[in-house]
Amino acid sequence: MIAFEDQTTQEKTPCLVVDAEAFAANVKAMAQVLPGLRLRPHVKAFKCTELARKLAANGHTAFTCATLSEVAGMIHAGLGADLLLANETLNVEQMRDVVALPGRVTIAVDSPETIAAAAAAGVTEVLIDVNVGLPRCGCPPGQAGVLADVARAAGLTVRGVMGYEGHLMMVQDRVEKTEKVSDSMALLAQAAADVGTDFISAGGTGTFDTNTVATEIQAGSYALMDTHYATLESPFVQAIWLEATIISVNTESGYVVADSGLKSMGMDHGNPAWAHGKVWFCSDEHVTMAPADMSHWSVGDRVRLEPAHIDPTIAKHERMWFIENGAATEWPVDLRHW
Amino acid sequence: MIAFEDQTTQEKTPCLVVDAEAFAANVKAMAQVLPGLRLRPHVKAFKCTELARKLAANGHTAFTCATLSEVAGMIHAGLGADLLLANETLNVEQMRDVVALPGRVTIAVDSPETIAAAAAAGVTEVLIDVNVGLPRCGCPPGQAGVLADVARAAGLTVRGVMGYEGHLMMVQDRVEKTEKVSDSMALLAQAAADVGTDFISAGGTGTFDTNTVATEIQAGSYALMDTHYATLESPFVQAIWLEATIISVNTESGYVVADSGLKSMGMDHGNPAWAHGKVWFCSDEHVTMAPADMSHWSVGDRVRLEPAHIDPTIAKHERMWFIENGAATEWPVDLRHW
Repeated sequence: MIAFEDQTTQEKTPCLVVDAEAFAANVKAMAQVLPGLRLRPHVKAFKCTELARKLAANGHTAFTCATLSEVAGMIHAGLGADLLLANETLNVEQMRDVVALPGRVTIAVDSPETIAAAAAAGVTEVLIDVNVGLPRCGCPPGQAGVLADVARAAGLTVRGVMGYEGHLMMVQDRVEKTEKVSDSMALLAQAAADVGTDFISAGGTGTFDTNTVATEIQAGSYALMDTHYATLESPFVQAIWLEATIISVNTESGYVVADSGLKSMGMDHGNPAWAHGKVWFCSDEHVTMAPADMSHWSVGDRVRLEPAHIDPTIAKHERMWFIENGAATEWPVDLRHW
Repeated sequence: MIAFEDQTTQEKTPCLVVDAEAFAANVKAMAQVLPGLRLRPHVKAFKCTELARKLAANGHTAFTCATLSEVAGMIHAGLGADLLLANETLNVEQMRDVVALPGRVTIAVDSPETIAAAAAAGVTEVLIDVNVGLPRCGCPPGQAGVLADVARAAGLTVRGVMGYEGHLMMVQDRVEKTEKVSDSMALLAQAAADVGTDFISAGGTGTFDTNTVATEIQAGSYALMDTHYATLESPFVQAIWLEATIISVNTESGYVVADSGLKSMGMDHGNPAWAHGKVWFCSDEHVTMAPADMSHWSVGDRVRLEPAHIDPTIAKHERMWFIENGAATEWPVDLRHW
């Protein structure tokens, strides 16, 4: 990938650049394990219908969303064949607008309140969201059956169950991960039995090949990757970079300053990585870095950084540049906001 | 402020809400120390021309910007009387577009390359950016005079010098801070003498009243504040909150989940704070929190969180809601991106 790293664009910086070859390799590697509808790609990772369109063309025609605006955007882009909002919402008005659009929309619910909101909005299909160990949304596993009854009594079709074993994504040891995922998914399988369904949605990039219980996996980050997921053994490679311009060089102190500040990247997983040196710190509009070879870098040079967390990084940008055979195509990040 | 915290809006969450009274108190407190042009408010903190307009109405008619798009946006909003881009850029094309607009624009330069870019773009006025201790942009103090000559030889007017003592913002002890700021600003004063100017721009919210060398202070965060700056002794109060909806309640484990994830706030200074409980962790679309009184909170309730770092938090939003006498006015975050 070093060749790509050296082949910078002429676009205004900071900007996101996607390497077509690396992206295609990730798509292929995932489809070998989870072909077609075995994967329900999570659009929250990339928020871009152009990217989603490529996944759909590869057979992954059902998608996961985290916000109603992602659902609406996917439908408007003609990608609304089967969308799951894998998140709770009380926004009846926005839900009503979304389910009025010409797409198939299933909404996650985990309480009488979210069920009532879905019913009030005219939603037809819901999924019971079950807590499988991550302290976040999802009903206690033992309540899934009861909630399904509440939903059905409200006139909703209960399509299945979902759960997100997010607390296990970063377990490094494969044997340990497999065991823990199995234990976590046993809760979801029991909830599915209680609900009376064989539709089980779960998983993510960190458990795509260890979660054997879910009938579909909600992975999204695998397509572009970041340094956080790169710490796991996986077939996925870095496919997106944050391109920046060096705007200041301090030879005396041995650092350069580039124009990709923390407003252009997610910081919850720390600093980005740079193949050619160490990142000292990020401020709002700057990143200060110590190159391995100071003599190599001048004011005006471009650099490419690897984001630490791809989801919030992309969410800060209006567009990505998809680089294929040296040509840059603009991919709007059109599923932003909420 | 508890009264305000309990007086939630009906807007779609997550959303930013500004308390008019707290904002006005901050504006007043700052103007007492730094009236009129003694303050050059930094728009990067709030990226909103409606807010800037209120500062201008209060006598602060000259502004600091961090990006060319902020400069352009300020001019388009009729606030271009005296704008300083306190940052380096090599983007000749964008600079050319900006200086063609009907405003007064001064650009920071710290190298022959940035000077050449400014000259090529038709910039008329520059400021020599001097490194005063923070490892970021700025020429070594001893080179300011030489760079000013280079700029003048390129046909540019050198309006003055600037430096940012960002490494001293969070020094807690006032005596220590005053001494260190004084040492740092001695470098800038010497650079000003070398350049032959008495125009010295520097400072920020953390040094607004300890920096006595700068002829103008570039503070911006003071207007709305965050938990990071709140750790300093200052007259400024929290004036902005991130409002969220509780979408899930886990009574058994004692936590609630709200819909303000890390895509809606800057995470470089850590989690936001919540007056009514502890924030456990943030994920992309969620924040998990343990309320002090679990029985008080239900699904659908609204909460208000204090952002840890206001600049990147606001930069993620399309708008803020300015709440005055119970009524919400939309303030577009129209200076976003770069």
